[in-house]
Amino acid sequence: MSTEPSTPPQVTSADVARAAGVSRATVSFVLNDTPGARVSEATRTRVLAVAKELGYVPHAAARSLRAGRSDLVVVPVSVSAIGRLFSEWVDEVETALGRRGYTVVLHGDRTSDPVAAAQVWAQLRPAAVITVNDSRMTAEAAKVLERAGVRAVVAGAAAPVEGVFTFVGDQSEIGAAAVGHLVERGRSRIGVVMPAERGLSAFAQPRLVGAQRAADEHGVTITPLPMRYTDDAASALALLCRELELDGVFGYNDEYAALLSAAFGDHGVAVPQDIAVVGADDLVLGQVVRPRLTSIRFHLPSADLLAEAVDRLVHDGTAPDLPRVWFEVVARQSS
Amino acid sequence: MSTEPSTPPQVTSADVARAAGVSRATVSFVLNDTPGARVSEATRTRVLAVAKELGYVPHAAARSLRAGRSDLVVVPVSVSAIGRLFSEWVDEVETALGRRGYTVVLHGDRTSDPVAAAQVWAQLRPAAVITVNDSRMTAEAAKVLERAGVRAVVAGAAAPVEGVFTFVGDQSEIGAAAVGHLVERGRSRIGVVMPAERGLSAFAQPRLVGAQRAADEHGVTITPLPMRYTDDAASALALLCRELELDGVFGYNDEYAALLSAAFGDHGVAVPQDIAVVGADDLVLGQVVRPRLTSIRFHLPSADLLAEAVDRLVHDGTAPDLPRVWFEVVARQSS
Repeated sequence: MSTEPSTPPQVTSADVARAAGVSRATVSFVLNDTPGARVSEATRTRVLAVAKELGYVPHAAARSLRAGRSDLVVVPVSVSAIGRLFSEWVDEVETALGRRGYTVVLHGDRTSDPVAAAQVWAQLRPAAVITVNDSRMTAEAAKVLERAGVRAVVAGAAAPVEGVFTFVGDQSEIGAAAVGHLVERGRSRIGVVMPAERGLSAFAQPRLVGAQRAADEHGVTITPLPMRYTDDAASALALLCRELELDGVFGYNDEYAALLSAAFGDHGVAVPQDIAVVGADDLVLGQVVRPRLTSIRFHLPSADLLAEAVDRLVHDGTAPDLPRVWFEVVARQSS
Repeated sequence: MSTEPSTPPQVTSADVARAAGVSRATVSFVLNDTPGARVSEATRTRVLAVAKELGYVPHAAARSLRAGRSDLVVVPVSVSAIGRLFSEWVDEVETALGRRGYTVVLHGDRTSDPVAAAQVWAQLRPAAVITVNDSRMTAEAAKVLERAGVRAVVAGAAAPVEGVFTFVGDQSEIGAAAVGHLVERGRSRIGVVMPAERGLSAFAQPRLVGAQRAADEHGVTITPLPMRYTDDAASALALLCRELELDGVFGYNDEYAALLSAAFGDHGVAVPQDIAVVGADDLVLGQVVRPRLTSIRFHLPSADLLAEAVDRLVHDGTAPDLPRVWFEVVARQSS
């Protein structure tokens, strides 16, 4: 069914002013709780009642234009490219910021150039921007945001970024931990899954770099393994791993690792006897599959600490450092 | 590391006007490409160059205040509560709307009261709001949005909603399809998993209603099974199913169904011989586990059709109906 083609009966603050018999300034004072504005209690009550009756909702952007600051927080993230653990953390961050009076919006992270992306976010004039994946925030992008009045530019990144409140979390440590564990288990010909799906290379590339670093240290070889997240692609890759006589695989994350591990089973390649498999992100999925999946768990700063830092940055321009993201191996049956 | 505690050097259109030696109105005409405004090509070029040099980004909200319309589309959705199939569709919708000049933001869907939620979205003064889960959009909530000038109020819902451009998709049909399939497989004591995680009851409740409807039709019994998405909870529930002598389970979705199916295996309950298991959403996960999971696949309107409808609603106030969401059983080894 369709809406009526007529113009919608949009209600403005002028309508409220007219119906309440007061000026638009008075309506604005009341609805925005302007400090120091002298409005009688009777007028305040009448304006609020009329606004409610007419169904008037204040305009956040107009309010922030007048107040000179916004309550909007932009979190650039692509919903399909993040794992369950991570998406739950994003939800918690939203809740924690909501409790502090912020409205969080997620913006799909489509633009590959960090400065161009920052220009899009800057147009929303948010109070804060929080990026959570490597290479998304640069010093130049931060300047664009700063010039647009963004008070808190926060980024999770492998190393501190100039002009950015950085919480350090180095994805390459995940790859290094996985390969270190496989070497401990006596493996020396190690494959590293590189997902073909869009949006994932920002995570996959540093994981590969860390895997290579650990492999160099231990004198073992790394083979990058391109894979799509489909049953057929996993099946073909399992056969290739057998042909290459690999004895260990770091599967990028638990989803890819579990899919590949199932394909090994189908082709009679025993996990972990013939080939050990390690995932990452410690999803519940790793405990759904048999053999249960060894994984790398990561520990992000708590949502509440992050929200507190954002609020401090918005109000004071400074905040105490957040704890570094850290990783640990959770050994199970697949390695 | 922290940003400097000094006030950021915010660049405004007044700075651009001063540096270019023109009025603020001229800056506005140039940067907003105002139709009919007479600005010489030389001035236009100078203003654009100065804006670029100073790093000035137009304010989307201020521009929409002037233009009387916004390019913002709000999609209320909780990132952790949606499956992979669905989140990929949301990503595609973002891309399709982006191609038509809209900026899509996702807003976490925290408020349980539809009108209160609509008031939060209305404050952003978007051009469009798209809700995608049952019971999220009501006629009252749509009125709040309409009064705030939202041109396109679009909802996926089980039945048409007054004043809303509805694309119909009835989650209860998923539960009905799952139970119908289990009955075909000779099952009569059927459990229906009810996830305990927040944000999921909007999907789980109608699925249970549909399961009950089909059970009544076929003269079989339904037992609701509360479950958390953890290994231990699945293990306890598997034992309970055995005690209750259930012979079929609809697992809410593929994730819960796969976790429960693995727990049956651990306790020596054979799937599908002792108990048949059906998931939903047809995630790749269903092909990762052994036995492979029977699932219910759903077919949403294409992202491009939806984006086109939004654009038509914004500009013309009307759009052709979208196809109804439909479901099919994908039978695999678990049933």
